[in-house]
Amino acid sequence: MSVNIVRFEHQNHVQWGVIRGSQITPIPGTYATTGEFVRNTSLAELAALDADTLALSAVKLLSPVTRNQQFVCQGANYRQHMIESGIDPDVKRYNMIFTKAPSCIVPADSDVVKPRVVQFLDYEIELGLVMRKAIHDAVKLTNANLHEYVAGVVIVNDYSARDIQIPETQFYKGKSFRTFGPVGPWLTLIDVDDIEALNNLQLKLTVNGEVRQNDTTANLIYGPAETLTELSGVHDLEAGDLLATGTPAGCALSVPSPAKQRIAALLPEKEKWAMFLKVQAARPQYLKPGDVVEASIRTADGRMDLGVQRNRIVAQE
Amino acid sequence: MSVNIVRFEHQNHVQWGVIRGSQITPIPGTYATTGEFVRNTSLAELAALDADTLALSAVKLLSPVTRNQQFVCQGANYRQHMIESGIDPDVKRYNMIFTKAPSCIVPADSDVVKPRVVQFLDYEIELGLVMRKAIHDAVKLTNANLHEYVAGVVIVNDYSARDIQIPETQFYKGKSFRTFGPVGPWLTLIDVDDIEALNNLQLKLTVNGEVRQNDTTANLIYGPAETLTELSGVHDLEAGDLLATGTPAGCALSVPSPAKQRIAALLPEKEKWAMFLKVQAARPQYLKPGDVVEASIRTADGRMDLGVQRNRIVAQE
Repeated sequence: MSVNIVRFEHQNHVQWGVIRGSQITPIPGTYATTGEFVRNTSLAELAALDADTLALSAVKLLSPVTRNQQFVCQGANYRQHMIESGIDPDVKRYNMIFTKAPSCIVPADSDVVKPRVVQFLDYEIELGLVMRKAIHDAVKLTNANLHEYVAGVVIVNDYSARDIQIPETQFYKGKSFRTFGPVGPWLTLIDVDDIEALNNLQLKLTVNGEVRQNDTTANLIYGPAETLTELSGVHDLEAGDLLATGTPAGCALSVPSPAKQRIAALLPEKEKWAMFLKVQAARPQYLKPGDVVEASIRTADGRMDLGVQRNRIVAQE
Repeated sequence: MSVNIVRFEHQNHVQWGVIRGSQITPIPGTYATTGEFVRNTSLAELAALDADTLALSAVKLLSPVTRNQQFVCQGANYRQHMIESGIDPDVKRYNMIFTKAPSCIVPADSDVVKPRVVQFLDYEIELGLVMRKAIHDAVKLTNANLHEYVAGVVIVNDYSARDIQIPETQFYKGKSFRTFGPVGPWLTLIDVDDIEALNNLQLKLTVNGEVRQNDTTANLIYGPAETLTELSGVHDLEAGDLLATGTPAGCALSVPSPAKQRIAALLPEKEKWAMFLKVQAARPQYLKPGDVVEASIRTADGRMDLGVQRNRIVAQE
């Protein structure tokens, strides 16, 4: 049975706690990083933790993933999002991996700053996996041993500057601006009995109350076990590292179909990108200062509930 | 005047030292990371360091950049390499940024493992910049203040699995395999008088003694000050972080010209990539087990000399 964890600041001290309803039970000990926290605590002990509580409203929530951790991401991992991104799902036969700069990680309810240099700011709700232990060699993960490697899950919003990300071809810069990575509010720790639920989480994102993204992790193309198995053969992961598993359809981004792209490819490069920007400029879905984005992830029965993120978009001063 | 620093293991202790010829003068103190080292030492003190020395041959050299640091890279940053990579230098008007997983960092003389899943292994000699202090906000860097932000320079070989990097579009995975990032042998610390020399470093890479890459940093498109200025407006950098500035021409990779790509773009995606792989298969320049790659960076007068990397390519067991 999952347990929801918060990292918070109270009376100038950074602490971790178990959150139940609107009450936080502080966890004894000091853990500087998410890695230290997951390596030195156990779900059973945390579930049983009983002590004086603090009101959620009395603390300042921080991201449950600290900025020392790696922030690895999957791209184009839901079929309908691939199509809106101009990728043919019957041709893309690889697990697309990129990173975001960890300094973009902010608490779940942060204002998101639209940089002056960015025209087309987009949202991407994603399920994030938080590593339980290090992987320094190729390992074979399955749904039977996934809980040994994954400590828990978080909501990630992979904010993206489409006018930088897409024309510059490498996603890193356009997805790494400061505040572009709200994480949390909870770190939902899981045990072996929760693995099945990872495949049935409902992701829902609204902008000013209007539903934009609404899908389930049942539709993930490359699931957690398969993805971590492949990554383990490439590079190391440490306890506390974050893997964002991709976003479903419903983003503001609109890229022509592969067939139309083949025609656009005949144009000189400059005209091709001018056309791309013109298409985006006609999309009212892109975020403006004042917009409010809410993101939630939970099972349909509410037994596993990762909480709600709420971001206000603000202009860069 | 620059000073060459090594990080090494001797009698089971990891230490830092000043290297002069084949002798190492150990530096007092313990520094767990490159960030700690550059924040707590000064070039003037290190240049004046006088103590008993160790023979270089008696120690095991480590990478002078530790794996906790960010490994940020510029792509397509020399005109001729852009052309061989199929990019039109008169159209690409952005500074392409991506990352490598820090766990690929290995000492300069490491064996490089060609993974079983990789067919086309390529080399990329690059000048690496190591940050002196953190950047947490937009700053304007120029050649006049660059020395305040950059502690020194290193040789980086950005080994790349072209059959993964190019078809999967995001560079991260194909460039992040374990051993794909030899760094060093020296960290060449610089002061204000050395900034001019950064624009005149000779990069030379050989495979089995045959010269493949031979160019100068005078031909960099986006220089260090301009690049760090832009990055400072996107995300944080910490002391000790590594920025690899891109590779000159001469790689094994060969991508058709933009004009030919426009024709290839008319093909179904699958056939396009089959053609790409066929072109690469005809390139004998790709690395095979047994090949020896040597990389050196220095000024023509030898006053600044970053040392020599020597990697043997080995098959994954």
